[in-house]
Amino acid sequence: MKSKFAKRITTASRSFTRTILDLTSQNSIISFAGGLPDAALFPRENIEKHAKNLFETQDNRLFQYSNASGVEALKIEIAKKYTHALASEIMLTNGSQQGLDLVCKTFLDEKDCIVVEDPSYLAALGLFHMYNATIKAVPLHANGVDVQELERLFKTYQPKFFYTIPVFQNPTGYSYSLENRQEVVKIAEKYNVILLEDSPYEALRYDGKSTVSFADLLPKLTIALGTFSKTLAPDFRIGWIKAPQEIISALTLSKESTDLQNSKFFQYICARMMEKGELNAHIQKLVEYYRPKRDALVEALKRYFGESIEFVIPEGGMFLWVNFKKCADSMQLFDKAIKKGVAFVPGSVFFSDKRISSYGRLNYTNSTLEQIEEGVKALHSAYTEQ
Amino acid sequence: MKSKFAKRITTASRSFTRTILDLTSQNSIISFAGGLPDAALFPRENIEKHAKNLFETQDNRLFQYSNASGVEALKIEIAKKYTHALASEIMLTNGSQQGLDLVCKTFLDEKDCIVVEDPSYLAALGLFHMYNATIKAVPLHANGVDVQELERLFKTYQPKFFYTIPVFQNPTGYSYSLENRQEVVKIAEKYNVILLEDSPYEALRYDGKSTVSFADLLPKLTIALGTFSKTLAPDFRIGWIKAPQEIISALTLSKESTDLQNSKFFQYICARMMEKGELNAHIQKLVEYYRPKRDALVEALKRYFGESIEFVIPEGGMFLWVNFKKCADSMQLFDKAIKKGVAFVPGSVFFSDKRISSYGRLNYTNSTLEQIEEGVKALHSAYTEQ
Repeated sequence: MKSKFAKRITTASRSFTRTILDLTSQNSIISFAGGLPDAALFPRENIEKHAKNLFETQDNRLFQYSNASGVEALKIEIAKKYTHALASEIMLTNGSQQGLDLVCKTFLDEKDCIVVEDPSYLAALGLFHMYNATIKAVPLHANGVDVQELERLFKTYQPKFFYTIPVFQNPTGYSYSLENRQEVVKIAEKYNVILLEDSPYEALRYDGKSTVSFADLLPKLTIALGTFSKTLAPDFRIGWIKAPQEIISALTLSKESTDLQNSKFFQYICARMMEKGELNAHIQKLVEYYRPKRDALVEALKRYFGESIEFVIPEGGMFLWVNFKKCADSMQLFDKAIKKGVAFVPGSVFFSDKRISSYGRLNYTNSTLEQIEEGVKALHSAYTEQ
Repeated sequence: MKSKFAKRITTASRSFTRTILDLTSQNSIISFAGGLPDAALFPRENIEKHAKNLFETQDNRLFQYSNASGVEALKIEIAKKYTHALASEIMLTNGSQQGLDLVCKTFLDEKDCIVVEDPSYLAALGLFHMYNATIKAVPLHANGVDVQELERLFKTYQPKFFYTIPVFQNPTGYSYSLENRQEVVKIAEKYNVILLEDSPYEALRYDGKSTVSFADLLPKLTIALGTFSKTLAPDFRIGWIKAPQEIISALTLSKESTDLQNSKFFQYICARMMEKGELNAHIQKLVEYYRPKRDALVEALKRYFGESIEFVIPEGGMFLWVNFKKCADSMQLFDKAIKKGVAFVPGSVFFSDKRISSYGRLNYTNSTLEQIEEGVKALHSAYTEQ
């Protein structure tokens, strides 16, 4: 069956990534390619305890139809993460990917411009492409975006959104400094551009101090996306949107026509874990568990590669962005690395123009310390073969 | 924020229905307006048993990311409902509303024509409107659609889909005869039109023999939508799409970009209930529980209204479609009925042109036998006041 969207799906860039992920799901490959949390850390006991409690305490309305925006108790807990936010400024989604999709579906007309960071999150780039948006990319540096270029893009293209991942960005692990954020806020206000702030990783901070979000700096022009997929479990399928009430109202109608609502079951469990402080305790565990993995990757990269590569040590999140500067096209390095039994994602897929790149993204959350050591060794062996 | 979609959302017809449902969720109102299954019948013990078993037997991958098309064991069970179907021709969705949305999102270009039954399911009409489809309606009678008019519409407008609810239709409760189905199949093949077959109610059959689906009569041109919301529980959020493999492939990519995947938890529970025959046993219970409600509504309508109204006794499903023939505009009857403490949905909202109608939709699954008696009495009192 023919349609413009179906045509764009088949040309979307995800197929290469799918190949990588399929390839690297083989047990013989050490994979730095994915973006999965470590399943060993899922808070199984808490989930089971609260599930049991739900069966004991809730009547059958638990399984009945309900409203499109989600369980009130959870919206109240999420609102507390922001300054002065109300539960009515929050809605729950089927993971934050649905939040992103609902925003595009509801507010994006074809050819509308979206500014993205260069590089940016692959699945967001794919989605914007499917909606036939005009995509313009602003260079991202270790402390934030190039604000002069951002202003030029806002002025020239009057974008509908600036899609930004300001903390522990995917794929770079970079975070915006407070100064950079404030500059972005100034420009967004001047040109009346909505900041579409995606923050899936912010809870996973291993060093440094937490920063203030765009949602708090400029609430009237920010649509913020969050998720429990990286802190609790992906299968919960709970993301959220925080935005001004009139935007939440439109998005809730859109959600209702899209799939009526989400399951309340895990929303209740999540709310209880927040109310009882169990989520925060669990995040502390995650941080203590993931930090040594990041440290091990950083240490092994330095030891094996020395000055032959460049990277910024991320203060949190799941990724490290490496400039394999002796290899102009990291896709070639990828081919050799696979043969040595290690995988990563070549940088080119994260750029909206898919240009050849010497960069690669390494994930460290889903490998053991031993795998990290062994994987870096194999990667170095592939690198020096060039 | 302005966009074409956001504008269409605000003009969509659901707001009136929302008002009705809000109004009728007051406990003082007897509501024949909704379309809810009776929560008292949710198979709570089975759910709890299988949930406990999942916690005992599954490792943490249960809560990890997985594939977009859903749990294989459930796709295998669903495939058995069709003749010669493969699991690869099935995908799972967040309720069947998401199935409908994904089909539109993926295959519908703006202004593409969709033929709908006249009257048809409100939320589908709203969705097609939001996608800016050209909607043409074919008259629906007690035994199926007007096939001559259907052929004229297919020939004139070359629609992309014919959206059909062939069993216990919403809002009418009507079902297509086998002869009518065969005529529709012939015309669909002749003009190469996809049958978008929505069958949420088919398992709830109180009398008569089950009929063969469009998915079995014309698999290569049918996209079939199904759901467990009416047989197990709406909060499971499990619907499915059955279609040719290349269509499922495109829809799976679309699902992945939309929200990655659904939760596997209730999908596993649902699969186990099917494997063990518990779903079929539960459906038998539902049928024995809902049949007396339908009978009570039919009997009370005949007793109070006599020849002053017309309706066809539905062989299953959740709705009865009444021609309040002495009241040209059932919206006026609605206003009076609400004052007497009883609600239904005026027919006009189910027609794509929202024309004034003497019909109304009565739901009987979510009222007690006493409420049915009392509600019909109140409705008759409103009717005779005209």
